[in-house]
Formats: sequence, C-alpha cells, structure tokens
Amino acid sequence: MPVLPELAAGDYDRILRRPGAGDEGMEQRVRTIIREVADEGDVALRRLSLELDGVAPDQLEVPPDVLRKAGEAVGNDLKGAISTAASNIRRFHEAQLPDDVSVETMPGVKCSIRYLAIERVGLYIPGGSAPLLSTVLMTAIPATLAGCSQIIACTPPGAPPELLHAFGLFNIRVFQVGGAQAIAAMALGTESIPRVDKVFGPGNAWVTAAKMQLAARGLAIDMPAGPSELMVIADSSASPAFVAADLLSQAEHGPDSQVILLSDSMPVIEKSLEALRTQLEALPRRDTARRALEHGLAIRVRDMEQALEISRHYGPEHLVLAVREAGSMAERVTNAGSVFLGHHTPESAGDYASGTNHTLPTGGATRGWSGITTASFMKSITFQEIAREGLIALGPAIVGLARAEQLEGHAQAVLQRLAKTVNTDKPGKQ
Amino acid sequence: MPVLPELAAGDYDRILRRPGAGDEGMEQRVRTIIREVADEGDVALRRLSLELDGVAPDQLEVPPDVLRKAGEAVGNDLKGAISTAASNIRRFHEAQLPDDVSVETMPGVKCSIRYLAIERVGLYIPGGSAPLLSTVLMTAIPATLAGCSQIIACTPPGAPPELLHAFGLFNIRVFQVGGAQAIAAMALGTESIPRVDKVFGPGNAWVTAAKMQLAARGLAIDMPAGPSELMVIADSSASPAFVAADLLSQAEHGPDSQVILLSDSMPVIEKSLEALRTQLEALPRRDTARRALEHGLAIRVRDMEQALEISRHYGPEHLVLAVREAGSMAERVTNAGSVFLGHHTPESAGDYASGTNHTLPTGGATRGWSGITTASFMKSITFQEIAREGLIALGPAIVGLARAEQLEGHAQAVLQRLAKTVNTDKPGKQ
Repeated sequence: MPVLPELAAGDYDRILRRPGAGDEGMEQRVRTIIREVADEGDVALRRLSLELDGVAPDQLEVPPDVLRKAGEAVGNDLKGAISTAASNIRRFHEAQLPDDVSVETMPGVKCSIRYLAIERVGLYIPGGSAPLLSTVLMTAIPATLAGCSQIIACTPPGAPPELLHAFGLFNIRVFQVGGAQAIAAMALGTESIPRVDKVFGPGNAWVTAAKMQLAARGLAIDMPAGPSELMVIADSSASPAFVAADLLSQAEHGPDSQVILLSDSMPVIEKSLEALRTQLEALPRRDTARRALEHGLAIRVRDMEQALEISRHYGPEHLVLAVREAGSMAERVTNAGSVFLGHHTPESAGDYASGTNHTLPTGGATRGWSGITTASFMKSITFQEIAREGLIALGPAIVGLARAEQLEGHAQAVLQRLAKTVNTDKPGKQ
Repeated sequence: MPVLPELAAGDYDRILRRPGAGDEGMEQRVRTIIREVADEGDVALRRLSLELDGVAPDQLEVPPDVLRKAGEAVGNDLKGAISTAASNIRRFHEAQLPDDVSVETMPGVKCSIRYLAIERVGLYIPGGSAPLLSTVLMTAIPATLAGCSQIIACTPPGAPPELLHAFGLFNIRVFQVGGAQAIAAMALGTESIPRVDKVFGPGNAWVTAAKMQLAARGLAIDMPAGPSELMVIADSSASPAFVAADLLSQAEHGPDSQVILLSDSMPVIEKSLEALRTQLEALPRRDTARRALEHGLAIRVRDMEQALEISRHYGPEHLVLAVREAGSMAERVTNAGSVFLGHHTPESAGDYASGTNHTLPTGGATRGWSGITTASFMKSITFQEIAREGLIALGPAIVGLARAEQLEGHAQAVLQRLAKTVNTDKPGKQ
C-alpha cells in the first residue's frame, strides 16, 4: 500500500482510479445467459446451474418447511446476534417510511403523493465464500416494512443452515439459483420463479453485469453495487490499530476491494500501516486482503479540508471519520454511501448491526445514487382532483401552455369541460 | 379503436400489449454515437448535430444574456400561464422535500439518514414538433428546490424564444445539443458540456436508448420514459365529451401513444367513441392522433372491480377516474404514474399546471418506478456514531455475524476497539 505525499487537485482523477472491472467476454456471456433464460426458462436455469455451479437441484424452490426447520442447526449465540441486528435494522428502517403529502396548490386544485409498496420484489443473496445472512436482513427487513406483497429471493445452491434460517424469519419464497441466471429469472420470470418488479442485492461481476444489462431494458434495480470501498479520514487523534483494523475489514472482502487512508499526520499513516502489517498476518483471509491492498492508497493530506475534498471527489461507499470533531465534519460530507463517526464506530458495525443498510452504491455512484432505504421498496403515485371552480381558475394557464406547445388536444380537454355547465351529480346526462 | 367485450384474466397479457418499440439498428447506432462522444467530445457533438439536426452551432452553450432577453419576445398571457403553473408545481414539490431521520437504535448507537441534493444534474428538453417549455418547469423546479448546485440542460438547436425564456427563469446553463449525443455528453462530459451525476427528462426513442445504454454503465437516470399512455376508467356518470377529449389529448402526442378506455357502460363507450370521432376532425394534429388510435382500445368491463384489476395489470402512465366515487377508487390504485380524479380533472392539467410532475414512467415501469419527485434530485447518506458503551453492548452481535460469514477482519475491527480502554480524548496516544 503506497504512501503518497500531498496531491494537487489536478491529480485526483489519475490517482483515485478504481481497480478496473468487467470485460467484454463476460458481458457477452451474460447477454447469452439472459437470452437463454428468456427463451427456455427453468430448463436453462437447470443447465446453467450444472454448468456454472456444478449442481442442478431437482427442485428450484427451497421447501418452506426446510426454511422453518433450519434454525434447529443454528446455535443460540448466532440467533441472538441475528436478533440484535434485526431489531436495530428494523428500528432505523421503520423511521424511514415516507409520509404521504397532500397540498391544495390553489383553491379547488388538490394534489397529493402517496407512497406504496412495490408489489413484487426479488432479493439476490450471494453464496460463494460465505453465507451472507446479513444481506438477508438488509433486504428482507425493509421489504417487509414497506409492505411488498410478494418477496422472493435467489441464492446459489447449497445454502448452509444459517442462511436458510435467516430466510425463514421472513415471509419469503427462496429459490436455489445463483449468478446472472438468477437475476435474469427474477427479471423475466420462468415456470418456477415469478417475475418481479424490482431486483435488489449485491453480487459478483456476473450478477452486476446482469442487473445492469436488464436495467437497460427497463428493470428497476437498487443500484450498481460493485466491489467494496472504504475511505478512512484520520487526524492525529486516531488510533492506528483501529484504522488498520477498519482498512483490513474491507480489504478482506475481495481482491478488487479498495481501501484508502487520508491523514494530515505522517505518524498516524506510518503507525497505521505498521499495525496493518501485523494484523494482516493473523487474518484467515490474508491472501485476499493482501491482493486488495495492492491497489490501496495512503495519502498525506494538507489538512482536513483537503481530506473532505478528496472524499467528495472519490465518493466512497464507506467513509470512516476517525477524527476529533467527527460530528461537524460529517455535516460537510457530500458523496458517500454510509459514514462512521469517531473512534468507536467500526465500519463493520454498519455491515451487520448498527441499523443502517449495508447495500450501498460503489464505483463513484454515490454521486447520483443512494444506498437501500425503506423507500427503495416503494414507489410514489401522484393524484390530483380539481373542482369545477378550480378548473375555471386554472384552465386558462393549461390552455395557454398547451397552445404554446402546439397541443390543441390538451387545450380542448379543458375547453370541453369549461364549455358545459355540468351538473356534477350526473355529468353523463348532459 | 376497437371495442372489446369483457376480457378473461388470462387474456390481459395478450390484449394489453403495448405498441412495439426500438429496433436493433437504432440501438447499434446509439452505441456508436456514445462512443464517438466519449472519444471526440465537442468535435463529435458538432458533427452529429450537423448530420442529424442539420445545424452545427458555433457555440454549444446558449449565452446567458440570450436566455435573459428571450422573454421580450414572449407575450404576457403566456408569461402569466407559466407563472401560474410554476407556482403550483413549486408548492407541490416543496411539500415533497424529505425529512432527515435520526434514531438511537439501542443505547449508545445513533443512526441517521440525511437527504442531500445531487450536485450536478442534467435536464434533457426535447425539441421536435413543439417547444416543451412545461418540461423545463417540471425538471428545473424540483432540481432548484432540492438544491442541486450545478444544473445544466440540453435541447436541440433552434430553440424558440418561449423555451429560452423558460430556461432563463432558473439558474441553468443551456446547451444546444439534442438527441442521443446530448445524453452522452451529459453522462460523460465534453470540453464544453460538464459531466453530470444524474440525467432527467423525456425524449424520443434515440434519447431513451441512450439513457438506458448509459444506465447500464452506471449513469443514474430518472426513469425509462417512453411513449405516452392514458387509461380512462369511466362509469355511467362519465361525460362522453370529456372522456373523448382526454383520450385525444394523449393520442395527439405521437403515433406510438396508447389510449385505453375501460367502462362498465356500453352507452358511455359508444358515445365516447362517437364524440372522439367528431373532436378528432377539429384537431390540428389529427393525423398523429389517428395513428395512435389504431392501437387504442375500448374495453367493456364487468364492473369497476375488473377495471381496477386491468389498470393494475397494465400500470398506465396516466389514469383518469371518470367515476362517481373517484376518491375511494383512487385509494385502491396500485400501478400508475399519475391519477386524475373525477369529471373536472383533465389529464392535461397534470401535464402543465396542477402541480404534479408530468415526467412519469411508461411501458409498465410504474410497477417498480416512480415519476419525478423532488427526492429524485436528492440522494441519501446514512451516518452512525457509536459510543464506547454502545460498542460494548453491540460488539458481540457484530462479532457473531462476522464469524458466521467467515469474515474475521470484520470481527477484529470490533475486538481491537474493545481490547483497549481508550482514553477517548487522545486515542492516538494508546
């Protein structure tokens, strides 16, 4: 992990480059997978599962009683941890439920907006190296709070009991299909897997490519979620051991994770990197972390002002403020997914249990996207109701604008109404 | 416009088919345009403008004083109409500003969510047959209310004074570039046109294809907005003249617009279609409307229950409830962009001046997407701050979940902190 001296603003783009992602071959293969699922449904899912995951389950759906009974194989400590995390996540996401709004914009013209659950949602829970049961909580809790009437989830075959137990805590149908083919199945529907209106959840490069390709065809998705990122801003009050631990916690995610340390204190940078080398050796996933650290960066900044400027430019998924005045600094953060204030808030708290959501935009998408909130599982519909006196007052504006846009039919929809003194009880009798 | 008898639920998909869209040739051409803009910037914009719009403006940006002075050529009636519409739109969109939320999820664990403006946004305002000055209001007003610090707009060369005047009402930089190349310029940035974080606004098939292709590369967009749609649910209280006028107001948008009438009253259907034939002849855009009506539908429904079921299945952009009990029916609407209640609420009121936004999802996307709201110009960031006693309480849950996911580094970020009785004033001195 190289240590860089102060940067000039002109260097930001070049230095803060993210590790490259995706390749044309994979994009093409994902396109083919989507077409196969569209054309052949379950048959394609079984063939692709065998080919890519080495297993083709007889039954795509995990039977509900398997989910219910999975808890028997899960220890009480883990159940307690899940319950604490779920309670915090529920509390924070409940508070996010949006309020409907109703406004009389002018006399006789009522406008309102109502937030409704998206009816059918699909959750993707990655398998791979470990059962990501936290992702079940992070997606199923807000989906349930939003009131989605049909929640389904896909996860690769061979899910361990912990994961099945987590699913079993919710009213969810679970299908054992992974990868790009799972995303295609939820977006398009197959004989076994119902089509959904929006797809959520993280995944590897194949999953993300499938989400993005299907988004281009109109599928609603939560966000482009790629490799993990962490930026730590540390001043001289920071603990090198804590900084090192936070950097490693993201580096262990995958070789394409990126961790960046910004500090105005060279001793903090040096001691943090020293602590990092020591802590690294004790990690089971040290080989992964070591590869991620190859494109990690430690940057000596002029002052906290420049640290904020660089963080705004980079727009990290996770931002740790290991500084004295974390509260006032946090108020000035503009581009980030989730922010961790002070010395006792490890980034991993947000991954699991503080209550915030861990599904966050990456790759600079924090500039225009948000992490998952309860509102991500909802859509809004607007309503307007105009009384006759309201239309008399508003009509000329509508007609004026419609005619400026050369849309006479739009004007006529008003004029037809104004031309008749309607008996509003029975306008059909006019 | 064919009249269909009652449908069986199994027929919905087949009957409620939308007019086909897009073709592979266009998609490929848009891909090339995006690549050219990425590679050559302004040079490509000028060449494409000349090739596709027949003009290559010397200067891509419309000078601010041209915007300021454009009002001189605009009549006072139109200025008054703009001002009424803007005031209603502002009032309704101001009420939508989301509230920040702060929750102590457990003692010593504070989580909050803050809504911030997306800094750089790009508005696309179509040119073509008429100056869509209403779209300026519908995008620039919420962008301004949200607090976006950099708002730019693109519109094809040759914008008339009315449109320039509308731009001049806001703090916006305007560029005279249209089509797919304008979307590419805003998404990628060129020498003249700054790159933005999210792109908004309707457009033709080329513009939409560019938005969707760039969305697949991570660009945030408002929604997939395609050809206009209107569904009218009319009971025996409906006025055939009003129903006909509403159907025509959407049919005149373009040959690919779709209008659908649902009624449980055969007389209402017959009289509405009769009124439609008469009103059609008086419309300047009757040829366009006639082509749209070729794929219009009038469906006799069993009852209002079935009408709601069909409307939910179709998920129209605009839904007019020309019924006696519009209020209680509206409460049961699930998939729609914007809903118009009662006999005196023409759909065109929402297009221009009631206060609701007219940029809405189409093509069935209402199931998973929302129309533009003030929040569309904002993103959320979550924050958490954990006190030492909070971490002592929450730590075991984080460690338990991290170890269940085989991510020891995540556990260590907690354990490193718990291992030290930190002097929180100066943890760096540990």
